[in-house]
Amino acid sequence: MTARSSLTIVLAAGEGTRMRTSLPKVLHPIASESLLAHVLAAAPKGDGARIAVVVGPEHSAVEKEARRLRSDADIFVQRERLGTAHAVLAAREAIARGADDLLVAFGDTPLITAETFARLRAPLAKGAALAVLGFRAADPTGYGRLLLEGSKLVAIREQADASEAERAITLCNAGVMAMDGHRALAILDKIGNANSKGEYYLVDAVAIAREQGLDAVVIETSEDEVRGINTKAQLAQAEAVMQTRLRRAAMEAGVTLIAPETVYLAADTTFGRDVTIEPFVVIGPGVSIGDGAVVHSFSHIVQSKLGRNSLLGPFARLRPGTSLGDGAKIGNFVEAKAAVLEPGVKVNHLSYIGDAHVGANANIGAGTITCNYDGFNKHKTRIGEGAFIGTNTSLVAPINIGARAYIGSGSVITRDVPDDALALERSPQTTKEGAAARFRSAKSRHKK
Amino acid sequence: MTARSSLTIVLAAGEGTRMRTSLPKVLHPIASESLLAHVLAAAPKGDGARIAVVVGPEHSAVEKEARRLRSDADIFVQRERLGTAHAVLAAREAIARGADDLLVAFGDTPLITAETFARLRAPLAKGAALAVLGFRAADPTGYGRLLLEGSKLVAIREQADASEAERAITLCNAGVMAMDGHRALAILDKIGNANSKGEYYLVDAVAIAREQGLDAVVIETSEDEVRGINTKAQLAQAEAVMQTRLRRAAMEAGVTLIAPETVYLAADTTFGRDVTIEPFVVIGPGVSIGDGAVVHSFSHIVQSKLGRNSLLGPFARLRPGTSLGDGAKIGNFVEAKAAVLEPGVKVNHLSYIGDAHVGANANIGAGTITCNYDGFNKHKTRIGEGAFIGTNTSLVAPINIGARAYIGSGSVITRDVPDDALALERSPQTTKEGAAARFRSAKSRHKK
Amino acid sequence: MTARSSLTIVLAAGEGTRMRTSLPKVLHPIASESLLAHVLAAAPKGDGARIAVVVGPEHSAVEKEARRLRSDADIFVQRERLGTAHAVLAAREAIARGADDLLVAFGDTPLITAETFARLRAPLAKGAALAVLGFRAADPTGYGRLLLEGSKLVAIREQADASEAERAITLCNAGVMAMDGHRALAILDKIGNANSKGEYYLVDAVAIAREQGLDAVVIETSEDEVRGINTKAQLAQAEAVMQTRLRRAAMEAGVTLIAPETVYLAADTTFGRDVTIEPFVVIGPGVSIGDGAVVHSFSHIVQSKLGRNSLLGPFARLRPGTSLGDGAKIGNFVEAKAAVLEPGVKVNHLSYIGDAHVGANANIGAGTITCNYDGFNKHKTRIGEGAFIGTNTSLVAPINIGARAYIGSGSVITRDVPDDALALERSPQTTKEGAAARFRSAKSRHKK
Repeated sequence: MTARSSLTIVLAAGEGTRMRTSLPKVLHPIASESLLAHVLAAAPKGDGARIAVVVGPEHSAVEKEARRLRSDADIFVQRERLGTAHAVLAAREAIARGADDLLVAFGDTPLITAETFARLRAPLAKGAALAVLGFRAADPTGYGRLLLEGSKLVAIREQADASEAERAITLCNAGVMAMDGHRALAILDKIGNANSKGEYYLVDAVAIAREQGLDAVVIETSEDEVRGINTKAQLAQAEAVMQTRLRRAAMEAGVTLIAPETVYLAADTTFGRDVTIEPFVVIGPGVSIGDGAVVHSFSHIVQSKLGRNSLLGPFARLRPGTSLGDGAKIGNFVEAKAAVLEPGVKVNHLSYIGDAHVGANANIGAGTITCNYDGFNKHKTRIGEGAFIGTNTSLVAPINIGARAYIGSGSVITRDVPDDALALERSPQTTKEGAAARFRSAKSRHKK
Repeated sequence: MTARSSLTIVLAAGEGTRMRTSLPKVLHPIASESLLAHVLAAAPKGDGARIAVVVGPEHSAVEKEARRLRSDADIFVQRERLGTAHAVLAAREAIARGADDLLVAFGDTPLITAETFARLRAPLAKGAALAVLGFRAADPTGYGRLLLEGSKLVAIREQADASEAERAITLCNAGVMAMDGHRALAILDKIGNANSKGEYYLVDAVAIAREQGLDAVVIETSEDEVRGINTKAQLAQAEAVMQTRLRRAAMEAGVTLIAPETVYLAADTTFGRDVTIEPFVVIGPGVSIGDGAVVHSFSHIVQSKLGRNSLLGPFARLRPGTSLGDGAKIGNFVEAKAAVLEPGVKVNHLSYIGDAHVGANANIGAGTITCNYDGFNKHKTRIGEGAFIGTNTSLVAPINIGARAYIGSGSVITRDVPDDALALERSPQTTKEGAAARFRSAKSRHKK
Repeated sequence: MTARSSLTIVLAAGEGTRMRTSLPKVLHPIASESLLAHVLAAAPKGDGARIAVVVGPEHSAVEKEARRLRSDADIFVQRERLGTAHAVLAAREAIARGADDLLVAFGDTPLITAETFARLRAPLAKGAALAVLGFRAADPTGYGRLLLEGSKLVAIREQADASEAERAITLCNAGVMAMDGHRALAILDKIGNANSKGEYYLVDAVAIAREQGLDAVVIETSEDEVRGINTKAQLAQAEAVMQTRLRRAAMEAGVTLIAPETVYLAADTTFGRDVTIEPFVVIGPGVSIGDGAVVHSFSHIVQSKLGRNSLLGPFARLRPGTSLGDGAKIGNFVEAKAAVLEPGVKVNHLSYIGDAHVGANANIGAGTITCNYDGFNKHKTRIGEGAFIGTNTSLVAPINIGARAYIGSGSVITRDVPDDALALERSPQTTKEGAAARFRSAKSRHKK
């Protein structure tokens, strides 16, 4: 947390036509969060840290996402696409309000970190007017090269304008920039559009600052961190980089990932101590996993909470609103949704528990289904503590099963069952000796 | 499509003993198609493009696969294995019939592309008698080296015969070759077997062409494209290369693959616009996925069709003959087989829908099973539009459930249900107060 | 098998605090076996091959695991942690008993192979007193460098004491060592603790041997094989290396792994001929897979046996004690536990078969559940050969279903069914014409 105030302008007006989809580019997710969310998560936070998001003219969905993420964000619309400087100046009103540090970030560059933003701001505190984020490109072709004199940045040279010697430079412009917020408008307003495309380019800020006798410097980071996303393939690459980060962080915190490359996490997944996750697990947003929990292979979890020493899977699916109490267990081919399972509950196999509250230590037999939907409305199932639900049971909600009640296998339960009661819905078993043999022989004669 | 006629001879007589399996080598699949199928898919097609496949003496399965793939293919049997030129001449009859371009390809080199075949044919149109496919080997040891004089190929030197200088050459022979079809027999018939193994080698064609004053040239491709498959490990490597190609093509077409390295596609998978596929999905042959469809994690799909905006999984399995209408949904732990689901149908959980037709907007409750097999024959289930099937229902086929019918939970339905009717099979619920407590206390006394 | 006797001392007293877990470090598993188990599996075996394991003072779990793995192992407790030589001398009693070759290995270096131990012992048979395992480090920083004169090892130089020239040496000490067992105590007892930490270092054995006029040599191996495990990330890396080895060995034996990188094996998995494993399969300990078996995607198998030509999955889970007879099939969303399925049994969908014996060629319908648990005890289900169990059936154990018996769909079977009998538990179907329409219209009026 710096004492200096900041304004981070996130440029998010790109159309993303190369994504070949109608979803605005910055709303594509990686690690279960939009690209925009990742940038905003890395941007300065707290008192004196303001955010402005520049969106395209038909991007109300982007505006909505920005407000969801940072309710205090200022949204500006860039009506025409006339270059990066033009986009930044769409937020003129925010810039004019003043901030010590002005950061320019890109909504489609989601791998940037808070540490990098902090490093980029540091030179401003020491008097620089401009700090440009650079990276060493494996192949610099096409990038703007950063021309240095000693530690000072003197120009950003575009590929087309670069001499042969300049093209050999591998230090390239990442686009992200920090500016002295009090001098920013004076610089930005000087940027012209006397170039082949007639656009206003932010890179020109370097030369202008130099003309004004101000210092520009370069802060270097890795190429991985500043990769922009323009295609589905690049989106997948960014996902891979982000997953690698999340898995590494989880392992450093002590989580056992047997095969980390097969576990997909969300940016907000939280872990307790001594958690184990087997291969092939997908974790969506809003998941917390308590101390000692084990997630077996082939589990899929979204917006759910796993208590201490809870067990999940293999082949388990937790949909939003599921909470497993301490030591609770959800086994194979089980789906839970909006279900609170108190400590010690067991749902071992082949069940659907939805819109339900299950009391401590209840045992839910295989094939149990909460019939929460009657074709019109959703209803709630309540199962008391210590209840035992026999196999292949349908609990027709709304329904209350009492504590320690016992439900016979194969029942359809439509009326409430009191505490300690036994309930079942069943006909007498009929056994016809020899009938299978007769049936078989009749069928065999008519086998198709 | 070239105006020149072609004959592609695919050598597919190898025994593949290093595969350590009884399946003929070229029938092993990658991306759900046999190695032979991939080669034939890349070979020239259309008018004037003939195919000959040379098979081993006991390979009727290879012959059958070749005919399945190209019903007009000529099949030739190589009775003895006396070298590559001997194998090509097994197709003498086809060569003698004449074609402008003769292509020699290998059934165990499935990564070759149509583009490469086209590039290889181009020099023939310009007068060359022979065009040999070459590649730069990371480690050339063991490969035949391509000796050039200017742009002309003068010889293919085998490892054993190569001088030290020649061994330093990294441009190697891939085996694949294009020959002037009208001169081919004159060249091939000159190839002798005066070598240590007494075999007839196709590589000798180069020296013979030169002796006849004809030109030979080299067309270069990547090592990956011409890797032959002799072991299960090489088969897996080829699968990986092919999957990478298929995933890349899907993403270029706009498909969102969150974790492309975890999605397995078939060579013939087709995608609409705005399709999303989550991690861990296996797609077998004959699958088409419509615009806007979402395939969630842990789905397994074979010979099925997903309509526009349909939703699948997680944990869903579509077996052959399944068709999901627009907006239809198949959820977790659901299997469908030979099932037509009209638009808007929902099968959300834990069901088996086989040999069935389900009308538009029907809702199939959790635990519904179509009892399509009575131990002797398979029967059909028809469910009308807008029907509602309660949970844990068994539909004993053959059976017709009418439009808008409503089936109570836990029913076994054995007789047809008319439109708009309610049907159920159920006993009255019996509830015995205190009985669970008594049962529990009795059991506790006898607990093992 | 050498004629020389051996003593392998495995140092396993490390606390592993960087693992951030309470489990002792050497008990963490890779490929379903503890790190310690992998080292002991690689150590010399058979007559004249003794094992000593040095454990920490509070590591009774490590002692127990060592005894489980090698019941004849001698366990020694290192009460204080005073260096590697001190740890070795905790086993003084075992060393004093005498062995031709003394091997020092590490419990947290699980990738070492039997071949490497054999190579390390070879110089002792030729008169060397000491053989040190070395590796070429990609980055040697921090490792002890191996200083050679000709083929003789003259010293191991720690990073801190190394000259600039010595730091350029990339041949590093892996820690593992073989010593002439009859001279070992004379050398080990000379190791002092006159160093900054006041500890006894095994590396000093080299200089001492040289002082005594004895020869020390280096045996080289790959860096991968001697990586120690100190963190969860390193544990995952070792898992990956081990899985790569196991997959490669399986493919060399002829197993078809379509996507080897997605199949997780255990160190003890065994395969017959012509086995195929699809992508995304997890195999735990104690699994054997017979000739011609096919394991489809998304299968999870522990301590189970698959017979010849058996079929599993997709989406199948075999828990401990399951045995599939020849040609038996377990399909999707099926769990089996402690279940013997005789040849030809089919359990195609959505079932739980636990604590059961199923006779040959029985057909178990979708939704069948063996109710093996009554809330108090577990009971057994027996199904006779050729029986047909209808869908959604609950078999309430203990129960016996006779051979060729036929159980109607949706039944709860609580009493034994004789051979050839038909049994069912069902009410008559009630169909109320128009009732669904009336229900629907009533509900619509009250829709929430």
